[in-house]
Amino acid sequence: MAETTAIERAGLDALFAPRRCAVLGASRQPGKLGAVMGRSLAAAAGGVALINSRAPDPRAGISGDLRQAIDVGGPIDFAAICLPAPACPDAVREAGAAGVRAVLVCAGGFAESGPSGLALQDELRRAAVEGGVRLLGPNTSGFVVPGRRLVASFVPAMSHVLPGRIAVVAASGGVHHTIALMLAAHGHGISLGVGLGNAVDVGTADVLDYLTRHEETAAVALHVESITDAAALLPTVERLVADRPVVASIVGRHDIGAFAQSHTGALATSWRTARAALRQAGAVLVDDERALIDAVVALSRTRLRPSPRPGIALVTAQAGPGLITLDQLRGRGVHLPELAAASRERLAAVLPPLTYQANPVDTGRPGPGFADVIDITAEDPGVDLVGVYALIEPGAVDLPAALAARTCPESAPVIVGIGGAGDDVSDTARRLLDAGIVCVPGPTALATALAALADDAKARDRLRRVPDRDASRASTIGFGASRGWDEQQIKIALAGLGLNVPPGHRCASRDGARQALAALAAPVAAKILRPIIAHKTDAGGVRLNLHTDADIVAAWDSLAAIGASEVLVEAMSPPGVDLVVGARRDPAVGPIVLVGLGGTAAEVLGDVAVRLAPLSVREAATMVEDLAGRALLNGYRGGPVLAVGELAETLVLLGDILTEHPDVSDIEINPLRLTHDGLWVLDALITHLDQGGHTP
Amino acid sequence: MAETTAIERAGLDALFAPRRCAVLGASRQPGKLGAVMGRSLAAAAGGVALINSRAPDPRAGISGDLRQAIDVGGPIDFAAICLPAPACPDAVREAGAAGVRAVLVCAGGFAESGPSGLALQDELRRAAVEGGVRLLGPNTSGFVVPGRRLVASFVPAMSHVLPGRIAVVAASGGVHHTIALMLAAHGHGISLGVGLGNAVDVGTADVLDYLTRHEETAAVALHVESITDAAALLPTVERLVADRPVVASIVGRHDIGAFAQSHTGALATSWRTARAALRQAGAVLVDDERALIDAVVALSRTRLRPSPRPGIALVTAQAGPGLITLDQLRGRGVHLPELAAASRERLAAVLPPLTYQANPVDTGRPGPGFADVIDITAEDPGVDLVGVYALIEPGAVDLPAALAARTCPESAPVIVGIGGAGDDVSDTARRLLDAGIVCVPGPTALATALAALADDAKARDRLRRVPDRDASRASTIGFGASRGWDEQQIKIALAGLGLNVPPGHRCASRDGARQALAALAAPVAAKILRPIIAHKTDAGGVRLNLHTDADIVAAWDSLAAIGASEVLVEAMSPPGVDLVVGARRDPAVGPIVLVGLGGTAAEVLGDVAVRLAPLSVREAATMVEDLAGRALLNGYRGGPVLAVGELAETLVLLGDILTEHPDVSDIEINPLRLTHDGLWVLDALITHLDQGGHTP
Repeated sequence: MAETTAIERAGLDALFAPRRCAVLGASRQPGKLGAVMGRSLAAAAGGVALINSRAPDPRAGISGDLRQAIDVGGPIDFAAICLPAPACPDAVREAGAAGVRAVLVCAGGFAESGPSGLALQDELRRAAVEGGVRLLGPNTSGFVVPGRRLVASFVPAMSHVLPGRIAVVAASGGVHHTIALMLAAHGHGISLGVGLGNAVDVGTADVLDYLTRHEETAAVALHVESITDAAALLPTVERLVADRPVVASIVGRHDIGAFAQSHTGALATSWRTARAALRQAGAVLVDDERALIDAVVALSRTRLRPSPRPGIALVTAQAGPGLITLDQLRGRGVHLPELAAASRERLAAVLPPLTYQANPVDTGRPGPGFADVIDITAEDPGVDLVGVYALIEPGAVDLPAALAARTCPESAPVIVGIGGAGDDVSDTARRLLDAGIVCVPGPTALATALAALADDAKARDRLRRVPDRDASRASTIGFGASRGWDEQQIKIALAGLGLNVPPGHRCASRDGARQALAALAAPVAAKILRPIIAHKTDAGGVRLNLHTDADIVAAWDSLAAIGASEVLVEAMSPPGVDLVVGARRDPAVGPIVLVGLGGTAAEVLGDVAVRLAPLSVREAATMVEDLAGRALLNGYRGGPVLAVGELAETLVLLGDILTEHPDVSDIEINPLRLTHDGLWVLDALITHLDQGGHTP
Repeated sequence: MAETTAIERAGLDALFAPRRCAVLGASRQPGKLGAVMGRSLAAAAGGVALINSRAPDPRAGISGDLRQAIDVGGPIDFAAICLPAPACPDAVREAGAAGVRAVLVCAGGFAESGPSGLALQDELRRAAVEGGVRLLGPNTSGFVVPGRRLVASFVPAMSHVLPGRIAVVAASGGVHHTIALMLAAHGHGISLGVGLGNAVDVGTADVLDYLTRHEETAAVALHVESITDAAALLPTVERLVADRPVVASIVGRHDIGAFAQSHTGALATSWRTARAALRQAGAVLVDDERALIDAVVALSRTRLRPSPRPGIALVTAQAGPGLITLDQLRGRGVHLPELAAASRERLAAVLPPLTYQANPVDTGRPGPGFADVIDITAEDPGVDLVGVYALIEPGAVDLPAALAARTCPESAPVIVGIGGAGDDVSDTARRLLDAGIVCVPGPTALATALAALADDAKARDRLRRVPDRDASRASTIGFGASRGWDEQQIKIALAGLGLNVPPGHRCASRDGARQALAALAAPVAAKILRPIIAHKTDAGGVRLNLHTDADIVAAWDSLAAIGASEVLVEAMSPPGVDLVVGARRDPAVGPIVLVGLGGTAAEVLGDVAVRLAPLSVREAATMVEDLAGRALLNGYRGGPVLAVGELAETLVLLGDILTEHPDVSDIEINPLRLTHDGLWVLDALITHLDQGGHTP
């Protein structure tokens, strides 16, 4: 019992560190899944019991009875179930009853295959929950813990994966194998690798939570197809990155809907929202599996101090590859500070005058002075990380020896991109890795690794800050659905929360409109007032640039003609740059905040930044950096300059409205106009859940 | 003499296929450039003569006199000059006088190092021209022709590069080495590899021209830093791609100016224009050196028939990696047709019902039926190319054997992405390559290779078409600088060429303006008329929405107050979607045509398509596909739908105006408004060369 309690406390230890394993559905026919799995698990610490209740074969070591195997050989924590889908729920129950605490179900034929499979998957989940059994799968290829020689996978090549410092957590079994084997091909081992499949029980968040206590793991490579458990996942990522960097690659930027559904049966999250959520939780984002590997290899060896803007220096022995790296670093927004005058003086004493020495530092062919150049660069006060690119050639500097000999404790860490071929390169790579120095192949890989280290440092800088906002103002105003929220009512509420709203009057008659014009400075706008009229302009419900009494009367009459009983007469705002800001409920991650540039062009181009609410002002301020068109907000062609703090406060507030008013589905300010006099709410819309909002 | 004539006719044969080589500046000190180069060239067909006029060393085989070495050993076609920069011009003269026809100058210290270096580079160029010597460099690391064991490089690792089918032509010596050695590391040899350095004589166009006759070369990997010789380069690329695909990677998307200048001293071309130019000439574009390798490896083995929209099918044994590939193919605009009903029926007979069979085709684990699935897919009438992804595992299908056994001559070619590690994978890759089947590592590499084959087929489809336009109309109208081109004059000229221009009148008095209003349907616009007023609106020179006599009088007075003596009174156009179109002279490639969406957001986001003029209507029509915001032109929110042909005709015309009127520097229509009634020229501007246009 004491041991059982220990397993319960350890969570997934029964799966990833079992005392003993079993195969249910073992077989002696070599090609059968049960036989392959038996061979894979044979080397595992504690051994494996082969079970087949329908076809026991004592001569092949296959027992017919799980309980008997436990009575004879001792407790079994983990069983790989190698049976067809319909037989799996019973097998899970049987395993649970016998004291097995974790199972793997490889079979497909569950949610991904339609309604009957979905019912079978529900039954499988119930069997696991009722039996107190943790279940990995179904529809996956398993997991590996090379340090325990534990290979619970039907792909024999996984036995080649060596123990290492990187954990691979993949939504897909195939991607788990692909990434783990690519790492192996580049000489990197893994601490734990898992493909989650349909994830009826053990999900990404569970595995990441386990990894927060997994001493063998230094960094995590995460493959995501969709986020379905945001409430568990995101706080877990945030806890994990405190000690172990997480690099995430998210599939589904483009339309892959039908095939993705057939693959996992999962509800698709928006790619953009999934990225925003993981980035905000502290993960480093990459675009494909090669970048995933470059980034996680780098982060498994080196991590920068948290910093809002880490300074990266590039030392290159070949200018051409250096330009490739530099071009990519610029594209990723990496900060490459010009080296200090003192550093440049020191470099000038070492380098020929032909070379570029400001950052990048171009050395020409790597000679004996190469190590000095790296040292000088790494000691520059503005430099937090040095990337070095060199072709490895016999007769040139011995880079591993030179880097290992560095002694200054104050200097920045170095990571190396190498070019070349043959044994020289693999020897150099191995010696660098043995010395704890990151080494990646080629100029693009170097850029990816440098950018990943910078992104990780920035992410932790954002996370470590104490939340910098007071208790939300959003709760001081009611946003209940019982009121009919027309434009003027929303504006009054937003003005009450401190936003700028143009002066205006609600008018119920032609004379009222004329009085409003008289009270305001011309020109004014007149807009139909009715709850929830999106796209008023399209509907003909807006009249602009009204100067005279005759103008306002004509406007009233035309709005009345299309059914207006009340009209908002409002001062026209000065020209400026229009933004669209809003908050809505995402089905997977909950309240999110969005900001984009106004106008149909920006809308079509999808230049929008997304964050999860509630937001800190500091996090909200970073949203502007995500906009490709942010130059428009910075005095473009004599236009106004955004006070980022003012926008950030507005975004925080919108997120808080959704967070604190659970019946609000959607709030949008469109446009929020940036003028020389700050941000102004020109139109706004609120939707409640019972009005067909975004949440199902 | 007969042989010399042959060398002249063969162009770069003296460099890349010399009868015998020499090293000028040979040395017996092992670390010296002259010694390294001597060892590198020792294996070359025809042998190498070691020369050092200042320090001959007969015991080390180093002669003091080049002529004597020729008298004794026979003609020397090529010499590697391993001397400091200041000694190089004399060495080139000496080599030329002795009958050497091609030299390599590795030394740096020329144009890239400032004014004195630039003077030295001019002297070097003159020495080569006057001596009738082709010169590669300076400031480069050389070239290799592995099939001739010719390694003219100071990087000894280049001796490891094996003969193969891919030519590497790099602007930078370092990138040449990086790419050639990366290819070698993946098991691919090269036919010829060269780094051009400062390219004072032998440039990219020369090497590509040589490759049009190079039987050993099946495909070309091209690295470009800037285009300086467009007039020679682009037609050469076009000729080359008729027989040999060209894959190009262009550095400099982001700001790398200062370092790039120090590297090559070359005038930077716009990255966007360089890409447009090479794509239009038929090259396949990729983003980094890894994609360059994946694409050129694929194209060196397989090429599709020219096609405007080749159909790609994806067969995957693992759904997760398949989704990664699919996502990337969608992002690259690759056409993945749904398989025909007959194909799907055949697949249903082979595959379990759980899998997705429409395209992608998901097989589950690759079993014996895998080859049948590939065959059925490849025989589908809509499929031009099949991509297959599979983890290589013992016991699964033998993919090379299965693919080699395919017999149907009508079926589409297959390329393979493989995952896995260890000897199984390298064996499989080698066997596939030996069978002529493309094999690349991982799902992203597979997507890159498939997209490259599709892009190449599309490029050749565009190139093979007979130009589809009549003699240009642009020459029928004079666009000389002698006229003062104000808005109305440009509009009249464009109307004369068939474009839609709003009705309008030139008015020289208040009464004239009132008469114009009466003659046109209100509302009208009034605009100041003066030659070359860009941004009239910003300058207060435009009055819109004028309805009444009072309006037009007020407009006249206010325009007169800012100096107008003539005003254009013009009918207002209906609302629509604004485009910006224009043509200008690029300093490197000559006349180019641009189209983008109007408005500051699109401007800031840089969503612009570029082509070189003159254009065919068909090529111009493809420009719309390049616009990220093209949905705006297709009935977005009830808006107008673009007739692509109408826009294409306009773009062709703008390009023709620059082509046929050499004193025009720049012409822009901004906005060109898309309405439900077609495209309308709302404002236009022309600049001539003597007015500070774009050309220096």
